[in-house]
Amino acid sequence: MIKVNITEEFKPLFDPRSVAVIGATNNWNKWGYSTFSSALDGFGGRVYPVNNKREDVLGHKSFKRVMDIPDEVDLAVFVVPAPIVPEVMEDCVQKGVKAAVIISAGFAETGEEGRKLQDEVLSIARKGGIRFVGPNCMGFWSASSRLKAFMFPLQIRSGPIAFVTQGGNLGGAIVMSAFERDVGFHRYISCGCTADIPIEDYIEHFGQDPEVKVILTYIEGLTDGRRFIEKVKKVTQKKPVIALKPGKSEITAKAIKSHSGALSGSNEIYEEAFKKAGVIRVETPEEFLDVAIGFLTQPLPRGRNVAITTPGGSYGVLCADDCSSGGLNVITLSKEIIGELDKMFPPRWSHGNPVDPAGDRNLVAYLKAPEILLKLDDVDSLIFMGFGSFSGFGGSMGSMIQSLGITPEDVPRLDIHSFISLISPLLSAGDSKGEEEFKNLITSVIESGEMDTSFLDDTSSLFTPNGEIKDLTKIFRILDLFLGALVLYWIKTYKKPVIATTFTDSGSHLNLKGGFYCAYPSPHRASRVLIKLVEYEEYLERIK
Amino acid sequence: MIKVNITEEFKPLFDPRSVAVIGATNNWNKWGYSTFSSALDGFGGRVYPVNNKREDVLGHKSFKRVMDIPDEVDLAVFVVPAPIVPEVMEDCVQKGVKAAVIISAGFAETGEEGRKLQDEVLSIARKGGIRFVGPNCMGFWSASSRLKAFMFPLQIRSGPIAFVTQGGNLGGAIVMSAFERDVGFHRYISCGCTADIPIEDYIEHFGQDPEVKVILTYIEGLTDGRRFIEKVKKVTQKKPVIALKPGKSEITAKAIKSHSGALSGSNEIYEEAFKKAGVIRVETPEEFLDVAIGFLTQPLPRGRNVAITTPGGSYGVLCADDCSSGGLNVITLSKEIIGELDKMFPPRWSHGNPVDPAGDRNLVAYLKAPEILLKLDDVDSLIFMGFGSFSGFGGSMGSMIQSLGITPEDVPRLDIHSFISLISPLLSAGDSKGEEEFKNLITSVIESGEMDTSFLDDTSSLFTPNGEIKDLTKIFRILDLFLGALVLYWIKTYKKPVIATTFTDSGSHLNLKGGFYCAYPSPHRASRVLIKLVEYEEYLERIK
Repeated sequence: MIKVNITEEFKPLFDPRSVAVIGATNNWNKWGYSTFSSALDGFGGRVYPVNNKREDVLGHKSFKRVMDIPDEVDLAVFVVPAPIVPEVMEDCVQKGVKAAVIISAGFAETGEEGRKLQDEVLSIARKGGIRFVGPNCMGFWSASSRLKAFMFPLQIRSGPIAFVTQGGNLGGAIVMSAFERDVGFHRYISCGCTADIPIEDYIEHFGQDPEVKVILTYIEGLTDGRRFIEKVKKVTQKKPVIALKPGKSEITAKAIKSHSGALSGSNEIYEEAFKKAGVIRVETPEEFLDVAIGFLTQPLPRGRNVAITTPGGSYGVLCADDCSSGGLNVITLSKEIIGELDKMFPPRWSHGNPVDPAGDRNLVAYLKAPEILLKLDDVDSLIFMGFGSFSGFGGSMGSMIQSLGITPEDVPRLDIHSFISLISPLLSAGDSKGEEEFKNLITSVIESGEMDTSFLDDTSSLFTPNGEIKDLTKIFRILDLFLGALVLYWIKTYKKPVIATTFTDSGSHLNLKGGFYCAYPSPHRASRVLIKLVEYEEYLERIK
Repeated sequence: MIKVNITEEFKPLFDPRSVAVIGATNNWNKWGYSTFSSALDGFGGRVYPVNNKREDVLGHKSFKRVMDIPDEVDLAVFVVPAPIVPEVMEDCVQKGVKAAVIISAGFAETGEEGRKLQDEVLSIARKGGIRFVGPNCMGFWSASSRLKAFMFPLQIRSGPIAFVTQGGNLGGAIVMSAFERDVGFHRYISCGCTADIPIEDYIEHFGQDPEVKVILTYIEGLTDGRRFIEKVKKVTQKKPVIALKPGKSEITAKAIKSHSGALSGSNEIYEEAFKKAGVIRVETPEEFLDVAIGFLTQPLPRGRNVAITTPGGSYGVLCADDCSSGGLNVITLSKEIIGELDKMFPPRWSHGNPVDPAGDRNLVAYLKAPEILLKLDDVDSLIFMGFGSFSGFGGSMGSMIQSLGITPEDVPRLDIHSFISLISPLLSAGDSKGEEEFKNLITSVIESGEMDTSFLDDTSSLFTPNGEIKDLTKIFRILDLFLGALVLYWIKTYKKPVIATTFTDSGSHLNLKGGFYCAYPSPHRASRVLIKLVEYEEYLERIK
């Protein structure tokens, strides 16, 4: 038998022309209802319900058995009780089904008997050449066919991430959080007990797919660590693989066994395996998406030297603490650079890295500092603070904007240029030279296509007809938009990571015209992302 | 001289009858503008602007010098350049001002000369018996007088927290995050360079104030560690003191010096001092408020034994991992208890702790498990997952609710009882016994006064006149409201901590009728809170 390319082998799974949902039902109280709804939601191919008791399901003609479907079936989705999975798999073999996903639970995760049942299903599928996802999983999403072979209609976007997870709820929560952060997936697979396809095979497939830029995996236990290392290290040469792996204690190992049926293994063994395979390990679900977004939006840093700019001293201190304890080098500024910054800032500024203008109200001056720092050879990356309603010079913004004196005549006439003219004196604290510089900077960002200016399409959502501000948070949001566009502009211009953060507990996520931008919800989380970028860069250097 | 009680001594500071803002201005571009606006915002006493160039500020008659004010002045707020602070302080002494807050920067944080200037100001103030906050600070909020002696009009609520911070931006961001989470402060003090009043004196004052239930402090460096330990350990006997202290590296020490002018000291020394004083140390700004809310809403656990319930296995695994690696004991369930849970859950449930019904759609069954666990003597606390739109059985909720069949006649007639009747079959997955049990449980929660049912006051925001759901997220929110009320009910009934969490990256914060409820944004953060509660309880046991 000639071994086909894994991407070819997975074609019926991820790009089926027709799908049968076995166990589809009209009873909203069962997973067969939401799974069938989900398969119908957006998929361009043909979908057939299989139900041995009904004539039709959700208005679609239903079939008693998969063999009764008068069409080829590429993919079968199982939502039937575990005990009948073997006979349904026999039916699929007989029908010539090419791939399957078994959502049904009650297999290896329940103990010895469940494992036997799982082995039985596997041997039937192998006999018929059917590759399958699961059992005991939530299903998958494939962007190339827009198929949600999933337990319920998931909110998910197409995008450059591929994610295979042994935890369906964890995966779902991350997909949902990604949806809110405007980030999408090319593949998302809840792989459950991985009876047929081990995690490393999915990762191998993602490695070969040019649509995939970053790979995430949540692992509870691997069946063959050596095989994992061999396959995955070929992938990490080309793109980052980010893993979350719990299992620091005995108790966790027990919980894992009853959840995915996997053997957790010792933490040290995994640490070593990830190192050998070049896998980047994260500690929490929150970090998962943070780091993925970091890889999607930032170039790799050339080294560990970091500069920090902050409009708040304490956050500078905390960020420097996080960076240095994480192994980054918070560089010392030269006398020349301090002299240059002296010209822009009031005498009370921090005179070092982190660069903190110490309450100076001139935002324009603050926005010039990153350029000065990014130009330096010994700065490999920058952490830039100042987003969000508090940290974005927002504290004093309210009273400043009230003083703008927008007239009723202004409101309908506002376009991006007049709007910038309006806010420039405010952001440059009345310094007319700064005002001019800010206008030029923002204008060049707009011309570079980096900024979405559609927020001005409907000025009535920003101002009352009298020129009063309707919603201050929207104005803050526009400030974030300016800053986001600037950050993208710096990244492009200097080809170094510029990691943006807010102070507060919530991040800022904007989809700008020229690309995606994210401000992390804290300097702590921003520094963790930067450390992971550095680790990957150093790994690539090592294996060169 | 008779030493007065510190609370008496601080009376002119926190409960002044009259306030002078020195440096108040009409120029929106200066801090004197927003500080004066802020002092006017909500304070019941008299506020006077002092400005040597203007006749009036924001419509208030202005005075050239503080002595010109034809009234006693309890508190002076300084927003003038550093070099003239000594002469303004002389004026204040001459006027008989009793307390001050010096917002002006340019003192110890800038180096040797600044420190000399600061010493000069201190000696003038001491001579005149003026106690002062700062310099180089953002000011303070006092709930007892509703005074914002602050750099800008801060959004802040009254409440049981007292917070003294050497970082104004960090403090501001936390206050803002607290505002969004419905949590308030009795005192909030940005203390800057602490020239006159050291941090431990504020904490001593908070300790004596019965309005204060929890104390937060962000420390960059202390001047007298021994004094801190002596004063603070008297406070921690009565109420928790939570501290954030950066300074793990040389670099951080440098950043601290230029920020607050403090000497950072070695991390080990602080670790030891906090231990001696009974101070609970947190690692990140996010944890600060998490832990404060934990102390405000939970009883102290009697020990380290924790039970976990989760509607998602992977989150159970991660939570068990966090708990056990943090030093909690994820208990093993007895055969009897497993037998009891067997009766409620499908055979595939996890059969252990964490308790995971493994995709069972019967929410009512899931809500019975906590009561079974909390009744056990060897369960000291519970981590309860299931909040938020994904984890709150939300994935399948959409299709379930669409099937409710709400009629146009139902909409205007919905009250809390009919609404419960409507959603009960849905939450009990069609099991009529469970439906009845859920109704009884929620009814008893409503009768206990734990739940705010005003969301039904305007049913038209939930449903269209045709009975279709208008906004699914609002329905999820109501589910969270039910769960939040239940959690409060369990806490009251069993007198054990029940820490609620969502899966996703955002928390749920509700102000229920009977109290405040919070679901943390991740099991990781929830477990960190529980560990801190245990640490404090063990400290109290030790010093008994």
